Amino acid sequence: MKNARYDVLGIGNAIVDVIARTEDDFLISNNLAKGSMRLIDEPEAERLYEAMGPATIISGGSASNTVAGVVSLGGTAAFIGKIRQDSVGALFTHDIRAIGVTFDTPQSLEGPATARSFILVTPDGERTMNTFLGACQGLGPDDIDAETVASANITYLEGYLWDPAEAKIAFRKAAALAHQNERRVAITLSDSFCVDRYRDEFRDLLRTRQVDILFANEHELKSLYATSDFDSAVAALREEGALGVVTRSEQGSLVVTPDAIKAVPAGSIEKLVDTTGAGDLYAAGFLFGLARGIDHETCARLGGLAAAEIIQHIGARPETSLSEHVRQSGIMISELV
Amino acid sequence: MKNARYDVLGIGNAIVDVIARTEDDFLISNNLAKGSMRLIDEPEAERLYEAMGPATIISGGSASNTVAGVVSLGGTAAFIGKIRQDSVGALFTHDIRAIGVTFDTPQSLEGPATARSFILVTPDGERTMNTFLGACQGLGPDDIDAETVASANITYLEGYLWDPAEAKIAFRKAAALAHQNERRVAITLSDSFCVDRYRDEFRDLLRTRQVDILFANEHELKSLYATSDFDSAVAALREEGALGVVTRSEQGSLVVTPDAIKAVPAGSIEKLVDTTGAGDLYAAGFLFGLARGIDHETCARLGGLAAAEIIQHIGARPETSLSEHVRQSGIMISELV
Repeated sequence: MKNARYDVLGIGNAIVDVIARTEDDFLISNNLAKGSMRLIDEPEAERLYEAMGPATIISGGSASNTVAGVVSLGGTAAFIGKIRQDSVGALFTHDIRAIGVTFDTPQSLEGPATARSFILVTPDGERTMNTFLGACQGLGPDDIDAETVASANITYLEGYLWDPAEAKIAFRKAAALAHQNERRVAITLSDSFCVDRYRDEFRDLLRTRQVDILFANEHELKSLYATSDFDSAVAALREEGALGVVTRSEQGSLVVTPDAIKAVPAGSIEKLVDTTGAGDLYAAGFLFGLARGIDHETCARLGGLAAAEIIQHIGARPETSLSEHVRQSGIMISELV
Repeated sequence: MKNARYDVLGIGNAIVDVIARTEDDFLISNNLAKGSMRLIDEPEAERLYEAMGPATIISGGSASNTVAGVVSLGGTAAFIGKIRQDSVGALFTHDIRAIGVTFDTPQSLEGPATARSFILVTPDGERTMNTFLGACQGLGPDDIDAETVASANITYLEGYLWDPAEAKIAFRKAAALAHQNERRVAITLSDSFCVDRYRDEFRDLLRTRQVDILFANEHELKSLYATSDFDSAVAALREEGALGVVTRSEQGSLVVTPDAIKAVPAGSIEKLVDTTGAGDLYAAGFLFGLARGIDHETCARLGGLAAAEIIQHIGARPETSLSEHVRQSGIMISELV
């Protein structure tokens, strides 16, 4: 196996976030399930934008947030995702390239606009997402560049890729290419409603060893195994033989392997502002550590540290250097090559 | 004098901010004067955007930030400023209306795009602005709605209005209309380089009593009176007979009248993140208090409190309810009608 050019290749929906604070009443009157992601069409996007408060616009997208985090930690990363050639797409491209992520997926020249997610942040810091997938619908297997997959230590894929029509084919192609090149494949379950939509297919990915590493939060894991009992879900995950990483908000995370279950505390914060990107940045820290050959517990600490940065400000891209946070935390500096 | 429909009418450049963190080296290599505002053309805007890091996009503009602050404090406000009918203009319009500011200035249907300010925030929290004025160049006296001016307790104008071609004529028209209706007129000097460009005209506005209230920071005040000695500048301001308000960052502010000079401490903060909008939000607090008939010292405290909120996050629009901050601070609740 050659040395990897990239620590992490992220493949996911290329999205720009439109983030506004709101009261809980607004969620209730718009019939929105707090903490979830729902898909909306363009007319609903326009209606919601009209109704919501003043917004902050910042690049987002789950796997793209993760690779931005990997680079902020001092790692190397690439991203594959579909935008259209428009002003929102230009913004997405600027931001991901400006941080140093390789992003060369061909743009759509026609069809739906670049994706936007309208994110409502309630006073408790929880985010509720309303995503217009737009150009993401155009992602397909031809967008998976074999050379890029082969040169990434870990290929990381969103569960959200099951929503656009052809993206799951791209997902499977990327996973197969990675394994042909003796690379690892990771998936995040993304959202509990997303798991509801595609439960059998996600379980099949694990059963058939198309993925080696699974990220999930408590709700997603329980949804995956269709149980309301967390311990049963963790036990079921352990049976899969994969490396499982379960995030539990302020309760930290669990690293689940066939041999052991290890609990790691969350990163410390001063004030919770906006949970958008918490899971994405946790994955960034964990994957960066894993790509650099660091033990699982330290990987989980790096994840907690990256998540702690992101939830203390609006938006899901790091505002400050995560590698600087790692330096200040004293985590295993010597092993970070 | 009739009751005012608006506490404050702001007139200024309608701008969307594109904010990125940067190191001091970037300012030096691009020959940018830290803390200042410089005007740029569209090619330079494109060059700078290409060179700068990942950005947060959020509505801005000095007087528009101020009126957003007035509304967040529980006041009423209107805004006059020029956008073009384009996606950036739609964003500006959404955000200012969403917070409850009346904004009905006719849009340009052709000509340059809606204004953007490319703002670089260094690790010390200082912001350096590069503004493409675009559609703001089209603001003229026809945009000043007499009814709106007559129904605002205070009309607040940016010194920056001297930069677009016709806006100073609009400024003078608004000031005259306000005084015909026994309303007050306030100006902010905006930027020390701006004062350098228009020193004589700004002094003439005070001398001829076209403005009643002056906001300035230390640098701007020294530039106005072409002196390096702060005390001499304050003494000169006192001679004008106007109400002068001088902001001094963490040293708080001075309220300067012919009778007295009163020093008021700054609002307390936990962590300085981004000074963008500090002066604008100080003015919001002060003007809101003034419009509600509160004493100058308390007005200055409200200004300090609003500025403290804005400098603890990215962007120049309040992220949290300023009226809630006022409630928690215990400032003179009984007088806030």
